[in-house]
Amino acid sequence: MATSVTVYGPPLSTAVSRVLVCLLEKDVPFQLVPVSMAKMEHKKPDFIKMQPFGQVPAFQDDDITLFESRAICRYIAEKYPTQGTAGLYGTNPLVKASIDQWLEAESQSFNPPSSVLTFQLVFAPRMKLKQDEALIKLNEGKLVKVLDVYENRLGSSRYLAGDEFSLADLSHLPNTQFLVDKTDRAELFTSRKNVSRWWSEISTRPAWKKVVEMQNA
Amino acid sequence: MATSVTVYGPPLSTAVSRVLVCLLEKDVPFQLVPVSMAKMEHKKPDFIKMQPFGQVPAFQDDDITLFESRAICRYIAEKYPTQGTAGLYGTNPLVKASIDQWLEAESQSFNPPSSVLTFQLVFAPRMKLKQDEALIKLNEGKLVKVLDVYENRLGSSRYLAGDEFSLADLSHLPNTQFLVDKTDRAELFTSRKNVSRWWSEISTRPAWKKVVEMQNA
Ligand SMILES: N[C@@H](CCC(=O)N[C@@H](CS)C(=O)NCC(=O)O)C(=O)O
Ligand SMILES: N[C@@H](CCC(=O)N[C@@H](CS)C(=O)NCC(=O)O)C(=O)O
Repeated sequence: MATSVTVYGPPLSTAVSRVLVCLLEKDVPFQLVPVSMAKMEHKKPDFIKMQPFGQVPAFQDDDITLFESRAICRYIAEKYPTQGTAGLYGTNPLVKASIDQWLEAESQSFNPPSSVLTFQLVFAPRMKLKQDEALIKLNEGKLVKVLDVYENRLGSSRYLAGDEFSLADLSHLPNTQFLVDKTDRAELFTSRKNVSRWWSEISTRPAWKKVVEMQNA
Repeated sequence: MATSVTVYGPPLSTAVSRVLVCLLEKDVPFQLVPVSMAKMEHKKPDFIKMQPFGQVPAFQDDDITLFESRAICRYIAEKYPTQGTAGLYGTNPLVKASIDQWLEAESQSFNPPSSVLTFQLVFAPRMKLKQDEALIKLNEGKLVKVLDVYENRLGSSRYLAGDEFSLADLSHLPNTQFLVDKTDRAELFTSRKNVSRWWSEISTRPAWKKVVEMQNA
């Protein structure tokens, strides 16, 4: 297969790594074009043509340029339904609806507090920015409520959307990896029996381990 | 057709009205079951069984119960592809990817600031809550940046995702209606030529006018 797929952005970015793990799960060859955020390359006109909000990632395939990591993941999973991990976006309408539901839960409920915590606890210290304690506390409280819902759900279902690993689980990998690995808040996940079991399963998949390697390279 | 579809929640809720306009666009008969948020009915065990985060809407069809308004809209549009407004979720993979992309832009970039502004400017006064001026200013700034991207996009495309009205446009109706109609910030939309043209087109569709009637009833 020709490598027509290109991802623009640094693998350390949560939104970029969401797309990378999806491509790896689907065995889709791709090239990664670095974008230096330190040099503000994501705000330059050429990049803005691909991603009008000036954020990473941008994505190209033969006949399409796309932005928004979750839209890109949906596109990849629909374009290559049988290749790599099957069932990433469901094999029938009811399972697909459940995947969309939990993917939206990630995007609407999990991502906002976990992104704030990732930034405040991991990136702010690296960038020598002062941490905002009140904001950390507020978002930790929000994340606790979301994880309580997940704990309950994962008591009756192996993965969020059902019996199979799907885009809904995959989309949680980038932020959770930072929170578990690079902060002192791992307990949020490991203290919850079902969430902890789920996290062990999804974070040890070869595709994700490869992305973490790319991040640490 | 039997009315198997049930939506739980008040039409005044932006997330509920997103689902209602989708059902009306697709000519899908439904029943609306009121949920009193004043009486905290959305936090009662029976409701939490359908919507584990305790938010409206919840949705039922024959064989499925769903939450998350955008996941519900995707499900409806996929279940009834040819009925009502065709093309709401695309008729080929490239258009569908563009719809997903702009629906994500709504959910990730437009919704957060516009929801804060709707709450602060419309609902806080009704609930006799003090408005947070700093929060209003911050989110107005964020919304301006998003609308500048839309203004540019809508200069070369009739609708956000392409030539046809889609879920991407539809998803903007609830918050924008409040901001244009019930606040002094209508100018954010009406002062931008292309955004203004787009808003006139999408807000005067019969399906949305019916939802606004339900909200004002
Ligand atoms: N909703 C977007 C979010 C993209 C995003 O927030 N990217 C961050 C890096 S993880 C970024 O580019 N930040 C720089 C900026 O917003 O200026 C997606 O999922 O693709
Ligand atoms: N992401 C959800 C959001 C639902 C939502 O925020 N609903 C609001 C009303 S518009 C609600 O139930 N708020 C009460 C609460 O959060 O306790 C969706 O799109 O369905």
